[in-house]
Amino acid sequence: MGDPAGIGLDIVLAALAGGATLPPFVLIADPAAVADRMAALAIKLEPVVVDRASDAQRLTAGKIAILPIPCAAPVSPGRPDPANAAATIASIELAAELVHRGAASAVVTNPIAKHVLQSAGFAHPGHTEFLGELAKRFWGVTAEPVMMLAAPELRVVLATIHVALSRVPGLLTQDLIERTARTTLAALSRDFGVARPRLAVCGLNPHAGENGLMGTEDDAIIRPAVARLAAEGHDIKGPYPPDTLFHEAARARYDAVLAMYHDQGLIPLKTLAFDHGVNVTLGLPFVRTSPDHGTAFDIAGTGKASPTSFIAAMNLADDMAARRRGHVA
Amino acid sequence: MGDPAGIGLDIVLAALAGGATLPPFVLIADPAAVADRMAALAIKLEPVVVDRASDAQRLTAGKIAILPIPCAAPVSPGRPDPANAAATIASIELAAELVHRGAASAVVTNPIAKHVLQSAGFAHPGHTEFLGELAKRFWGVTAEPVMMLAAPELRVVLATIHVALSRVPGLLTQDLIERTARTTLAALSRDFGVARPRLAVCGLNPHAGENGLMGTEDDAIIRPAVARLAAEGHDIKGPYPPDTLFHEAARARYDAVLAMYHDQGLIPLKTLAFDHGVNVTLGLPFVRTSPDHGTAFDIAGTGKASPTSFIAAMNLADDMAARRRGHVA
Repeated sequence: MGDPAGIGLDIVLAALAGGATLPPFVLIADPAAVADRMAALAIKLEPVVVDRASDAQRLTAGKIAILPIPCAAPVSPGRPDPANAAATIASIELAAELVHRGAASAVVTNPIAKHVLQSAGFAHPGHTEFLGELAKRFWGVTAEPVMMLAAPELRVVLATIHVALSRVPGLLTQDLIERTARTTLAALSRDFGVARPRLAVCGLNPHAGENGLMGTEDDAIIRPAVARLAAEGHDIKGPYPPDTLFHEAARARYDAVLAMYHDQGLIPLKTLAFDHGVNVTLGLPFVRTSPDHGTAFDIAGTGKASPTSFIAAMNLADDMAARRRGHVA
Repeated sequence: MGDPAGIGLDIVLAALAGGATLPPFVLIADPAAVADRMAALAIKLEPVVVDRASDAQRLTAGKIAILPIPCAAPVSPGRPDPANAAATIASIELAAELVHRGAASAVVTNPIAKHVLQSAGFAHPGHTEFLGELAKRFWGVTAEPVMMLAAPELRVVLATIHVALSRVPGLLTQDLIERTARTTLAALSRDFGVARPRLAVCGLNPHAGENGLMGTEDDAIIRPAVARLAAEGHDIKGPYPPDTLFHEAARARYDAVLAMYHDQGLIPLKTLAFDHGVNVTLGLPFVRTSPDHGTAFDIAGTGKASPTSFIAAMNLADDMAARRRGHVA
């Protein structure tokens, strides 16, 4: 569902109404909010409210399977209400639980607004971190979620995510970079079908520090982490000057880039693939993807939201789940 | 000349040998190094050594005008020698002096290696900062150079340049952002012919801080600077989430972006325009451009260096100088 006042419902409905090729799915959401949004968007689909044990695969065209999570307050598109934060959070929890029970094979989350959730007591900086908690709750494993943005043009993973830029240098450690790289290399192989993954690692500083003239982290922290994994036989290289790593010729030389901070990875990703990037959480015991955009409250309910990234997120989740099961589509 | 062991000489020679359309120019360099590089690249041009008063406009095709600056040590492509740092620096100084004397209308610099120059006592973090000193020396003005990267796809300017990422948040002030924006808006109008320039300003933090959840600088420092200039009537907007500002639709809405740090601006620029971006220094009493790449010591003298960015830098300098003179090409 995501934030019900955002474009999450819009893009699900638009994808179905537009005839997009999607894997079977169930929408976890408030049925009344879905009905209202269909009316606002002039989309006619037959809602089929299912219980937890139901299987969305039996639905035929023109229908949408809804697993109900009631919202506490009426949903008004574009007007997020902290009263509905609990329902948003519950929809994420239920999705993870369904995968844990084997009733679904992957979770696709729609955008949330962190300040809305946090005003209702949500203690996580973002989806990615919350999913780590759910891994612990349902699977009993201590997961270290890694955020990947994936598009046909580029895959990037982030060593640090939703933190102020001033905190980034202090958060980088050799161990963090090694762990992030290991999770990424394993996921490229297991979930993306890259037999021998090639990982390129960004420096932190301009020109990757240029021999220490502009920062020491590149040589003191990043380089030893890369060297250790390379010594183990992984195809990992860096740290590279961050600005020269994302043009077309450079991208042909790796399968993913490990970026040190949010915008270092997301600027090139969204520059190259603004409307079709997918947010993927690696390192979890379950497959999770998400469209790579926000709640876009300003256009919720207007019909302007593009379902492109949502469709890509659905199909990537399906591909990843199939690879995990050993059944490559 | 740039670092004579880098690709600076290669790209000048390759541009001429390839028949590129270039404005008249004189190459300030060691004539022996130029002759050797021509031999290494199998390029045949007739060198014409000129004195300071000479005019490169009289040369015909197949010739190259050289204003001699002797190197102290023999130049070996790919092997930078601090003994030649003084000649590299002198070539920049002479270029600025020629413009000051009215013997040339613009300076185009070739790449230098800061660690080579600094090992020889050069105290500036980069070209841009050194050019500010030359503005003081020759023109007697206290310039505040602003680094712009310009390509047909995107123009970006940087509030901070060659500093470690950890220093960036502490260097940002409302005053710095206002001054950088003013210099940029003035240059867009004077040098680039944009009648009413539109400037978009990046946030510092992910999601531009998302209401203070991920850093306070966006709202405390950047937003008031933007508000002040907007109140004066300038078309300036922001701070925007940095990752959503560089896709094609976003780029149609501004004439330049003000980025807070080096890679925030250079990652999208080099992703979009890796081989044809131009480095432009705004806020100087003279026109200065440079190819947007480094010395590339590993390919110097091999013929692999592309002159594309150099050619773009030469022609942009010519355009800018013509606009400053009031003669738009």
